[in-house]
Amino acid sequence: MAEIYRASTTAPVNIAVIKYWGKRDPKLNLPTNSSLSVTLSQNDLRTHTTASCSPSYPKEDTLLLNGSPQDVSGARTQACFRELRALRKQLEDSDSSLPKLSSFPLKIVSENNFPTAAGLASSAAGFAALVRAIANLYELPSSPTDLSRIARQGSGSACRSLFGGYVGWEQGTATDGSDSIAFQVAPASHWPNMRAVILVVSAAKKGVSSTTGMQTTVATSSLFAARASETVPRRMQEMQKAIQDKDFEAFGKVTMMDSNSFHATCLDTYPPIFYLNDVSRAAIKIVESINAAAGKIIAAYTFDAGPNAVVYYLEENENEVAGLFKAILGEKDGWKGERGAKIKTSDVENVREAGGVAIDLLKDGVSRVILTGVGEGPVKTEQNLIDEKGEPVS
Amino acid sequence: MAEIYRASTTAPVNIAVIKYWGKRDPKLNLPTNSSLSVTLSQNDLRTHTTASCSPSYPKEDTLLLNGSPQDVSGARTQACFRELRALRKQLEDSDSSLPKLSSFPLKIVSENNFPTAAGLASSAAGFAALVRAIANLYELPSSPTDLSRIARQGSGSACRSLFGGYVGWEQGTATDGSDSIAFQVAPASHWPNMRAVILVVSAAKKGVSSTTGMQTTVATSSLFAARASETVPRRMQEMQKAIQDKDFEAFGKVTMMDSNSFHATCLDTYPPIFYLNDVSRAAIKIVESINAAAGKIIAAYTFDAGPNAVVYYLEENENEVAGLFKAILGEKDGWKGERGAKIKTSDVENVREAGGVAIDLLKDGVSRVILTGVGEGPVKTEQNLIDEKGEPVS
Repeated sequence: MAEIYRASTTAPVNIAVIKYWGKRDPKLNLPTNSSLSVTLSQNDLRTHTTASCSPSYPKEDTLLLNGSPQDVSGARTQACFRELRALRKQLEDSDSSLPKLSSFPLKIVSENNFPTAAGLASSAAGFAALVRAIANLYELPSSPTDLSRIARQGSGSACRSLFGGYVGWEQGTATDGSDSIAFQVAPASHWPNMRAVILVVSAAKKGVSSTTGMQTTVATSSLFAARASETVPRRMQEMQKAIQDKDFEAFGKVTMMDSNSFHATCLDTYPPIFYLNDVSRAAIKIVESINAAAGKIIAAYTFDAGPNAVVYYLEENENEVAGLFKAILGEKDGWKGERGAKIKTSDVENVREAGGVAIDLLKDGVSRVILTGVGEGPVKTEQNLIDEKGEPVS
Repeated sequence: MAEIYRASTTAPVNIAVIKYWGKRDPKLNLPTNSSLSVTLSQNDLRTHTTASCSPSYPKEDTLLLNGSPQDVSGARTQACFRELRALRKQLEDSDSSLPKLSSFPLKIVSENNFPTAAGLASSAAGFAALVRAIANLYELPSSPTDLSRIARQGSGSACRSLFGGYVGWEQGTATDGSDSIAFQVAPASHWPNMRAVILVVSAAKKGVSSTTGMQTTVATSSLFAARASETVPRRMQEMQKAIQDKDFEAFGKVTMMDSNSFHATCLDTYPPIFYLNDVSRAAIKIVESINAAAGKIIAAYTFDAGPNAVVYYLEENENEVAGLFKAILGEKDGWKGERGAKIKTSDVENVREAGGVAIDLLKDGVSRVILTGVGEGPVKTEQNLIDEKGEPVS
């Protein structure tokens, strides 16, 4: 029986604090502006992927995600496969003793440890894990930066999930995308007490897809150019300084302003794109009230292309921030487990000025919470999702 | 007994299609961009004001609005009184036979024909009527353009209510505001079949006041400058052309885009300002579906500093636009009367793609509708709200 080659990794989700929105090259996923994110802990949110290849496999490459076969014929997945195979081929060409893995069909199995229905951006973790797992399988000497060029072609923000901690994505200027790469602003250990509570909002319906949405914004928003050319470059500098200085007030203010700026360009799109709903607005009101009660910024909201709120805060303010949401949303899923149990609820009276309406909207509209924090980049694992015979582990 | 001098006028509401948002001089209400509005019919929405003066009146100027005494000591009202008195004084100085009205106390009585609770911008009609009524009382030879300089100091958008039809407000560049004036783009008779249905949304709470809001936007929004300096100047040209050409598709598209642009800069304000809520979004979805069903733009939404939707359409599309809202909101106040009764309801299936959710949100969130259309400017009336003895008519 022909040999089965396998390698496995886990990769994290990241949530941007300076948002990626707009492509200058849709094929290569080259962005119209740089962006910056916090990599979230894989204890809470991660994709686990095993890449495998063998001359004995059926000829077509395959991908199984959470037990369901996925289409791999799309240009994005194909670009990742092609680039990784080309790198492997270079190794094989320079050392004839190496097995010709680049010519074997790929079999990939992935699993997320979080509910798909949560509407969390899983494509970033998914493509980061896919690229990292195949690079491991192929024993490529490529750095995370090198791999970020490839993962970016699968899903733009995936490039940022190849690093842990605080991660930038430099937009670059080269037409081939060679300088559009991710870089680590600071490791998780530099500012390890960054926490996040995610409020998962039960949306009636998925809104406009981000790929379609961002292209419509670029084409129709009259305000978008100012965001891309002036606002974001300035904020990238401010945000990197805030992270270097571990200055949460600056970090939080820029995070909130940039989320609002991104959603403003969505609203300025024609036809307008709305990702925030009344529940999202209620979360914003509550965060504003938490900060008003504290007399400074101790909580910062941000929203991706959907109504879920991600609220960043520092561990020392856990009771004031997560504890306040626990007081409102304690009945929802997500508070069990060691971390959730030790959070003390804080007095809802502190946010009464946000109005009972905001509290009721959150209670009605949030389906679950996820407690997490800053975390590490992809981690190699011996736990394979494909067994020695090449079959998915069930 | 000393003589009682009286003069009365009515003045209209206007709803902008290119929005005024941002002051370059808060004292003189000089705007950061030009704007353009449609004057609405006074049959449906108007302020009726009687201005009166007499040497026999108590020394303090007074204003009664809908039966309630109003504070007239504010800088805005005082500016209007002062400027109008100065113009009267010039007349008196050049013709000593004229009674010295400028030295007499003013007594003003106003009434709106629409519910104050509706959250409709009543200050535009209110200040236009106040300025026009006093100008009539003083028998000033001032043109509406001259008076627009004065009304602007009461409430910016009031300057546009001194004309009927389609009205621009040129931002001007002079520091004294002398060239920041309203002008008529076209009379109502040029394009008389413009209609509007106003969906009055029951808001839980009044949002940020527009005066406070627009100053915060100017100070904190990074996208605002592009709107004021590039987007609006271009749209002012496009909108004037659309009106000259009676091109509803162009009129409607620019109207919707400009409303979205204005609310985008509100969202980009720090802290963010939200005037649109889920009911407003539902109205947008329904309008988009009406247009999709028609295969062209026959309805155009616009929102001021609040959740109420104003939907413009042409009379020939009344059943497709107003009739669709009647099919959804027929139980609400506002459909009685000749105009409402003759509107045929149109098939809700036409907007089913907007989702039952949007329909349910409208049903839950809209408290009443107002049917109206383009109309004339202020009209002098002999119907005085102050009697010959100087007492309010009850």
